[in-house]
Amino acid sequence: MFNHNIEIRVRYAETDKMGFVYYGNYATYFEVARVESFRSLGFSYKTMEDQGVMMPVLEYKTKYIKPAVYDDLLIVKTFIKELPGTRIRFEYEVYNQDGVLLNVAETSLVFVSSETKRPCPMPDYFLDMLKPYFTNEL
Amino acid sequence: MFNHNIEIRVRYAETDKMGFVYYGNYATYFEVARVESFRSLGFSYKTMEDQGVMMPVLEYKTKYIKPAVYDDLLIVKTFIKELPGTRIRFEYEVYNQDGVLLNVAETSLVFVSSETKRPCPMPDYFLDMLKPYFTNEL
Amino acid sequence: MFNHNIEIRVRYAETDKMGFVYYGNYATYFEVARVESFRSLGFSYKTMEDQGVMMPVLEYKTKYIKPAVYDDLLIVKTFIKELPGTRIRFEYEVYNQDGVLLNVAETSLVFVSSETKRPCPMPDYFLDMLKPYFTNEL
Amino acid sequence: MFNHNIEIRVRYAETDKMGFVYYGNYATYFEVARVESFRSLGFSYKTMEDQGVMMPVLEYKTKYIKPAVYDDLLIVKTFIKELPGTRIRFEYEVYNQDGVLLNVAETSLVFVSSETKRPCPMPDYFLDMLKPYFTNEL
Repeated sequence: MFNHNIEIRVRYAETDKMGFVYYGNYATYFEVARVESFRSLGFSYKTMEDQGVMMPVLEYKTKYIKPAVYDDLLIVKTFIKELPGTRIRFEYEVYNQDGVLLNVAETSLVFVSSETKRPCPMPDYFLDMLKPYFTNEL
Repeated sequence: MFNHNIEIRVRYAETDKMGFVYYGNYATYFEVARVESFRSLGFSYKTMEDQGVMMPVLEYKTKYIKPAVYDDLLIVKTFIKELPGTRIRFEYEVYNQDGVLLNVAETSLVFVSSETKRPCPMPDYFLDMLKPYFTNEL
Repeated sequence: MFNHNIEIRVRYAETDKMGFVYYGNYATYFEVARVESFRSLGFSYKTMEDQGVMMPVLEYKTKYIKPAVYDDLLIVKTFIKELPGTRIRFEYEVYNQDGVLLNVAETSLVFVSSETKRPCPMPDYFLDMLKPYFTNEL
Repeated sequence: MFNHNIEIRVRYAETDKMGFVYYGNYATYFEVARVESFRSLGFSYKTMEDQGVMMPVLEYKTKYIKPAVYDDLLIVKTFIKELPGTRIRFEYEVYNQDGVLLNVAETSLVFVSSETKRPCPMPDYFLDMLKPYFTNEL
């Protein structure tokens, strides 16, 4: 299993009149969590996209347990629990600075060639970086 | 069953560098779909909130089937398939102007008293407006 | 002078914890106002962009007079007061449903070729549609 | 003069189909820059708001010089050039990781009592923290 944690500070723009983070804005936090977990592996999502492989989201599920509020310093924990093939599945847990679990989520993404607009295999260099975290499965 | 359709024009702000609607922005479309389906019943979500009942989202699931692109005139179909109690469940289908299904989703929301911050029953006037759509269940 | 009015309903997503529309979200309203004013002329911004001319914003100024709140049905008035050359200048006034002036703004945009990434003249078909509104200046 | 620098990583959500940061999203960067400049002084905007003083934006002007792109690590420089009274004026410069100036902006905000909804003086503890940066003016 691969996992990675990041901190994200809640912005005023992300709150709504209920005083909480708007329910649609967590998707952005998970985008940041994915990209920073890649960066922690020495891997740039931007570079992959510049080289012709993009990763659109296929499926997204989330449960809102407690609200996040303005200026919270969220901890977003990201998990990849299975070695990806053409698809890659992430799970997430969001905690506030007091360790309270606010949100759980999962997303499935697919590798797509920007040339053919069709699914393609995960790039080898990405697979090679992830493999060490899944030695039992190999 | 209650159902309602609205049109939403995709804004430039809602696209991302992939050229598609950003995956997090559908949540806003579903918010608009919910509120406009209430308005079609003669019911204002804003008024309900001003009177002390708010409806935070508990759960949200969505599948991205085809991308929406800039300036698409989306049709968002909203369904309430069961008469709500303390919780209310919506299902959605998003089509583009060519009738292509782009996205399906569902959300569960809960009625919450803004005074006590605790779940509360659905307001009677809302229940009364919805009941005619669920005569078989009563 | 060319002018055009549109209505925009304030979304929950666009509010912030102060209970007002977040100050950054007016820019999206002005984008919608520009594009719909083009559409009223029989002209599609999307088509122009598909044909290789895009219109990035160069300058944006705005004054916040009164706050817009959730569910307001805003009227955005858009004005083009001078026949555009390589640049095009829009002015805006935002009113709520009670006729109260909430916001004034202006933007300058430039026509850019998506091929060369350099400024280019306004497309002739666009100029021809605007000219009748500026007969005194010709 | 008071000044403070922060880094902000451009999110995918903040880009648009032109491939650049959407022109409306800089406002959020400036919000973050203001709040983090306060935090660098040992001062929490959230605490001030919890204590009944909020700071809505009155005026915002910005020039877009070069586009910011996805994954850029922006440097946002924030300046307060005059000791604030009831109003506070910020200037900003946005650079990318290569030192290229992308954007300049300024905002004027006003201190407002959340109880009376009317302008109020800057809180003393905030004034005291800023004063050392403006010794010549005192």
